[in-house]
Amino acid sequence: MTTPRYIAVDWGTSSFRLWMIGSDGSVLGESRSDEGMTTAAKIGFAEVLAKHLAEVGAPEATPVIVCGMAGAKQGWVEAGYIDVPTSLSAILTGAVSVPGQSRDVRILPGLAQRSQAMPDVMRGEETQLLGALGAGSAGSQAVCMPGTHSKWVHVTDGNVTGFSSFMTGELFDAVSKHTILAHAVAGADQQPADTAAFQAAVKAAFERPEMATNLFFTARSGQLLHGLTAAGAQAKISGTLIGMEIAGGLSEAGREVNISLVASGRLQGLYGTAFQTLSLSYTTIDADIAVRRGLAAAAQAIWPN
Amino acid sequence: MTTPRYIAVDWGTSSFRLWMIGSDGSVLGESRSDEGMTTAAKIGFAEVLAKHLAEVGAPEATPVIVCGMAGAKQGWVEAGYIDVPTSLSAILTGAVSVPGQSRDVRILPGLAQRSQAMPDVMRGEETQLLGALGAGSAGSQAVCMPGTHSKWVHVTDGNVTGFSSFMTGELFDAVSKHTILAHAVAGADQQPADTAAFQAAVKAAFERPEMATNLFFTARSGQLLHGLTAAGAQAKISGTLIGMEIAGGLSEAGREVNISLVASGRLQGLYGTAFQTLSLSYTTIDADIAVRRGLAAAAQAIWPN
Repeated sequence: MTTPRYIAVDWGTSSFRLWMIGSDGSVLGESRSDEGMTTAAKIGFAEVLAKHLAEVGAPEATPVIVCGMAGAKQGWVEAGYIDVPTSLSAILTGAVSVPGQSRDVRILPGLAQRSQAMPDVMRGEETQLLGALGAGSAGSQAVCMPGTHSKWVHVTDGNVTGFSSFMTGELFDAVSKHTILAHAVAGADQQPADTAAFQAAVKAAFERPEMATNLFFTARSGQLLHGLTAAGAQAKISGTLIGMEIAGGLSEAGREVNISLVASGRLQGLYGTAFQTLSLSYTTIDADIAVRRGLAAAAQAIWPN
Repeated sequence: MTTPRYIAVDWGTSSFRLWMIGSDGSVLGESRSDEGMTTAAKIGFAEVLAKHLAEVGAPEATPVIVCGMAGAKQGWVEAGYIDVPTSLSAILTGAVSVPGQSRDVRILPGLAQRSQAMPDVMRGEETQLLGALGAGSAGSQAVCMPGTHSKWVHVTDGNVTGFSSFMTGELFDAVSKHTILAHAVAGADQQPADTAAFQAAVKAAFERPEMATNLFFTARSGQLLHGLTAAGAQAKISGTLIGMEIAGGLSEAGREVNISLVASGRLQGLYGTAFQTLSLSYTTIDADIAVRRGLAAAAQAIWPN
């Protein structure tokens, strides 16, 4: 029978995910909630972690490896940043210990791009990236990691040369809920998805990103003049943001670069459709598996067996 | 002594402005509030108008000419749209009467662009445009009318050939208040404006609009890595949106087109700085004067003396 070897935690801004991993690498237990950094900062990081450890019945001595916003300045213990350009494996040496815990708890650092014109930061995606590509990945590629703040990371032979964040997910929420378009999308989730409207918006925004905020407005004017549905309006907003993001993500590497999509579930489907619409070839890597693999690599480096 | 000849009303989504105009064209009284369409739809359009008429002491028989969202489907009485391409003066013939009023109240129509790919609508700006350019304006130009939903209107020899709305003002609010950047801009209004950050963002978004949502994010990462101020973060958001809008507004007409800026106050200053930063020459027309001139032309057409 396999015994628990370590606990892997992906602690984001608004979500918490914990897995208990066995000595053979299998997942022995899992616990998820919306107690991300924002919530945990109020009710206590140690308390949130303890609750989820109890949930999976983690033995007292099993160590915990954490990636994500728990290592931010406003998080639990600040874990700093590794500056790019850097090898992917550098994050394995930058973990910080959380003091005063009965068990060994380590938080992995993020990555920082200290360019004056294009400053950028990530926390959590670097671990996912390590898991997705492995420390020694060969060749040059653009890695698309969609989310609240999507990341496009340029990797050459296992080195991160630069990256860009796009506020796609968060802007989708802000535009859909806090502008006049809230009326246009009301009821969209009760309608079938409008893939044609999504694809048209992806293409329009990719080709003419300068029209993005005009394309948003056509979600309203399309309803006034052409009977566009709520699902169509929602698809236009989503497609515009994703089309613009892909144009931005590829603007330095060019359309010929190898694209890896690191995503799960709904986002994997949306971005896949977008890449196909733009005739861009890409490889898909499951985001959930990737982050567990990255945390496994960190656990193995910190607590070698 | 001059006597009241008509009442001019610019009734937008979130603002109400009324002027009592004398037989010599002078402004005899003015009344403003935030009782735009949204508020008036709840408390009653007739009631809001009556209150402001009383405020300026309007005689009982003085007629009222209205432009803006009061003519929308969700407004007081629907005033329809004139389809583009159209002559600017066509709006003068499309006013509808509000039934059941003790005085003559007319609402001017909006403009609609019924293109399938780029549907668009405006209400209020067409009247401002008529006032800004006059019915018989010669030559070809791009008219920039900044606001909640900025309009870029293409006019050739007094004819509107097409137009585009950009959600610049509303997105500035949504991004500043309802995303993670709310933390980045907190306190900005108590700091001196960061014109250099505004100009850099205008230029960056104009040249690379596909990076717009990444430029937003640098308002946060710039604070984490380079000590960017709240005013600097706010300037980045505003500059990004305005730079992207100008790129979109000029994308069909080209950079060589004559630009007219119809704006007042703070927006006149911001857009003026943006055009100068991009080395674009432009002519400024005051928006408040323009809308009164447009309403005057409508009053003269409906109630000729």
